[in-house]
Amino acid sequence: MPIYLIGMMGSGKTTLGKILSDILDKKFIDIDTEIEKLERKKIHHIFLQKGEEYFRDVETKILKKTENEDAIISTGGGIILKKENREILKKHKTLFLYVPIEILLKRIDTENRPLLKNGKYKLYDIWNKRKELYENFKKIDLKNFDIYESTAKILYEICEKKSSEIVNDFQKIIFKVKGIEDLKDKKNIFTSEIVNKIYGNNFINPYILENGEKIKNIENVKKIYLYLIKNNINKKDAIYGVGGGTVTDLIGFIGSTFKRGIKTIFYPTTLLSQVDAALGGKNAINFEDIKNIIGTFKVPDKVIIDPLTVISQKNENYYEGIIEAFKLAIIDGNISLFLDNIKKIKKRNLNIIMDIIKFSVKTKLSIVSKDPFDNNIRKILNLGHTFGHSFESITGISHGLAVGWGIKKEIELFGPNIKDKKLILDFLEEIIPENIYNMNININKLKKFILHDKKIIFKNQITIPIINTVGNVELKKIDILNYL
Amino acid sequence: MPIYLIGMMGSGKTTLGKILSDILDKKFIDIDTEIEKLERKKIHHIFLQKGEEYFRDVETKILKKTENEDAIISTGGGIILKKENREILKKHKTLFLYVPIEILLKRIDTENRPLLKNGKYKLYDIWNKRKELYENFKKIDLKNFDIYESTAKILYEICEKKSSEIVNDFQKIIFKVKGIEDLKDKKNIFTSEIVNKIYGNNFINPYILENGEKIKNIENVKKIYLYLIKNNINKKDAIYGVGGGTVTDLIGFIGSTFKRGIKTIFYPTTLLSQVDAALGGKNAINFEDIKNIIGTFKVPDKVIIDPLTVISQKNENYYEGIIEAFKLAIIDGNISLFLDNIKKIKKRNLNIIMDIIKFSVKTKLSIVSKDPFDNNIRKILNLGHTFGHSFESITGISHGLAVGWGIKKEIELFGPNIKDKKLILDFLEEIIPENIYNMNININKLKKFILHDKKIIFKNQITIPIINTVGNVELKKIDILNYL
Repeated sequence: MPIYLIGMMGSGKTTLGKILSDILDKKFIDIDTEIEKLERKKIHHIFLQKGEEYFRDVETKILKKTENEDAIISTGGGIILKKENREILKKHKTLFLYVPIEILLKRIDTENRPLLKNGKYKLYDIWNKRKELYENFKKIDLKNFDIYESTAKILYEICEKKSSEIVNDFQKIIFKVKGIEDLKDKKNIFTSEIVNKIYGNNFINPYILENGEKIKNIENVKKIYLYLIKNNINKKDAIYGVGGGTVTDLIGFIGSTFKRGIKTIFYPTTLLSQVDAALGGKNAINFEDIKNIIGTFKVPDKVIIDPLTVISQKNENYYEGIIEAFKLAIIDGNISLFLDNIKKIKKRNLNIIMDIIKFSVKTKLSIVSKDPFDNNIRKILNLGHTFGHSFESITGISHGLAVGWGIKKEIELFGPNIKDKKLILDFLEEIIPENIYNMNININKLKKFILHDKKIIFKNQITIPIINTVGNVELKKIDILNYL
Repeated sequence: MPIYLIGMMGSGKTTLGKILSDILDKKFIDIDTEIEKLERKKIHHIFLQKGEEYFRDVETKILKKTENEDAIISTGGGIILKKENREILKKHKTLFLYVPIEILLKRIDTENRPLLKNGKYKLYDIWNKRKELYENFKKIDLKNFDIYESTAKILYEICEKKSSEIVNDFQKIIFKVKGIEDLKDKKNIFTSEIVNKIYGNNFINPYILENGEKIKNIENVKKIYLYLIKNNINKKDAIYGVGGGTVTDLIGFIGSTFKRGIKTIFYPTTLLSQVDAALGGKNAINFEDIKNIIGTFKVPDKVIIDPLTVISQKNENYYEGIIEAFKLAIIDGNISLFLDNIKKIKKRNLNIIMDIIKFSVKTKLSIVSKDPFDNNIRKILNLGHTFGHSFESITGISHGLAVGWGIKKEIELFGPNIKDKKLILDFLEEIIPENIYNMNININKLKKFILHDKKIIFKNQITIPIINTVGNVELKKIDILNYL
């Protein structure tokens, strides 16, 4: 099945089309490129030498050929001018990528854009002529979105709703492509500014929290209690935490303490929260600058994982999730899922992302269910966290990347055999930005932070997960001063 | 085994001796009364007619006779003047009840007090003469204590430490006479002003909370979190909630949320908390004037019930506990434990109190363990609470007594057969102060409060426990407007 992207020049048809094709494992066809290949000339030369009519005829010919392709197809901006083309496009899934002219003007250069040879501001005339024709098609407003956000918005138009349950006794996890759309008729949605910006069209009167860790404080807890009281929320009414780990941590705490526990449903939207925070029943807020010091263990009533929301994440945040999932693979042993697919991971291939999420859910819940209250075996999930947390505190670098650095550092100090070490480090090097991967930290500062870790059991002794080999991680007591 | 109470006139030897004998099921002997019986004369006549030496000889004779009695024995204030008497008293458990002269002067009248015939202020001379002799014996300082508090203080000298576990899968309950003394080497004790006043000698640096429901608020929660942070409390350190339901509710909430749960041990000191609040894992604080709206379900790691602390309670508070326990008996069917022992209950007989506590623990935990999160059967514990809470809100009368009134009112409206109704009401009438038992409340006010009850399910419909017969209480949906 072909999926056509139409819209003005500069609206991102080609860029987004390529990204989408990588994500969906589909062929990518750019009609303009096909024309150039066929004619062996650049578009503006065809216009100059043979005129627009000729060009449009070739365009129609190519368009017709693509009708049987299972591909993402980007088109030239003027393709909708011809009735015949519009009729073809209407038979298929065609999406109009809308970006206001003001933004387009900042993006495009005029090279190889024959219609703009008389200056960029010609664009307004072009738009006015085409506007009504574009509006025949499903319009996706990309005005406020960056490249990955735009990609996600398009995916919601392309993908089919599809759901499956990840069965286990410990926690109910539902895996649902486009799951977030189910929120359209729900009340009591708590979300972050960023999630609301992208997915707010699915929420009625959401309670919007600022972005970031700072929302996890007692003052917000009190505000939300008040909100629940004012809205007469009872034990059987559900509240929805829709966002990353900060939102699910906060709403999980509220849900476990308001009226001694009300129905609580999570829609984790970041990869990190899908493979970690939303799983296992830990929730928390911060107090007196101490992270996660107040919280409970309470498994939410339901977690709905919509993998499409991962696509809208910024690279750094996406990689945070990958690193946390990779940590689970080191513990479980299944690192080939990551090593064999590094290119696809980088291109955010949806099948790989779904495999990684499913693997992580299974692995984490299998560990957590053996030790729900974090008294022993669950602590192996702290792999990379002892050094990672200290690195995070010193540099302010985001949690997931800091954990990646932490795994690297812990491997260098206590690490496994040379072969496993290389496999792990090679992957991390690909994923972690170079300046972070190779960052050196003052050892005395690092030592000071580690000695204040809550895992310290006595003086310099700390219990820390050590990688014996991939698939064999073990908690060991070590004297930190023997290593630093 | 005889137990001798010595001390100045007015220090409470006779009054406390009688109460103690009722509590401990022991005979009570008052040596002065025995002398009067033998001599068929009032003490002051013996002094007038035969002189002090004669009196002291008779006193020694009677004292010797009591040596084989298993009794609480109150003595005349001057009994320690004679060496022979002191030698006898030293062979046995003899307790010196100390009350400062200033307080004694306010208490005593001079009638039948021959040594004070020259005026009350003679008491200072008497005290100065006897002081050193009294100090040979175990001194109990009753300066700050009312009559029941004093009784409890004496009991801690008389009773033997004795403990037994109430075995069940749901919650670990240890029943321990003098259990509170185990706190002498513990840190992190949280208690109330009143409990600290009476039992503070067992606590090192306790964290003292004000008395009453008002302590259950978020500001206190924050203060205690800070205290725990400053004291480096870790997951395996225990915190101790020592007091009534307000203390265990607050500390239970702290213990379940600080670091996602730290070891939490309760020493409930009121009968009400021993038979109710400390059992079943509910904890809570109040917010925006709504009682118990924030909390969790978390069974404390251990509950130690010391029945002696019940003795120090004010009558009203003691009866609150009796009513809550009686409610359990109506549900369970075993009301004869209460009806057959009403006199002993009123006299705070320790064996009966212990039986009532053990019965209540067993009964409440058996209900709670079937429905830990209060979704169905546990709700029968709300018997009397629907009307009781409204009555409490309107009148400000204490919770337990209000529940008693509530049971009465609910029985009158929806009650069981005439026989059971009479059994229940007769008992309540004995226990609840008359002015409260017979108090009438404006029906419209009552209706208004009941219609705001959190148990309201729809409009005027409420689910409420109804007594079919004693031992058969059932949750029923009723339309409240059919009854009010």
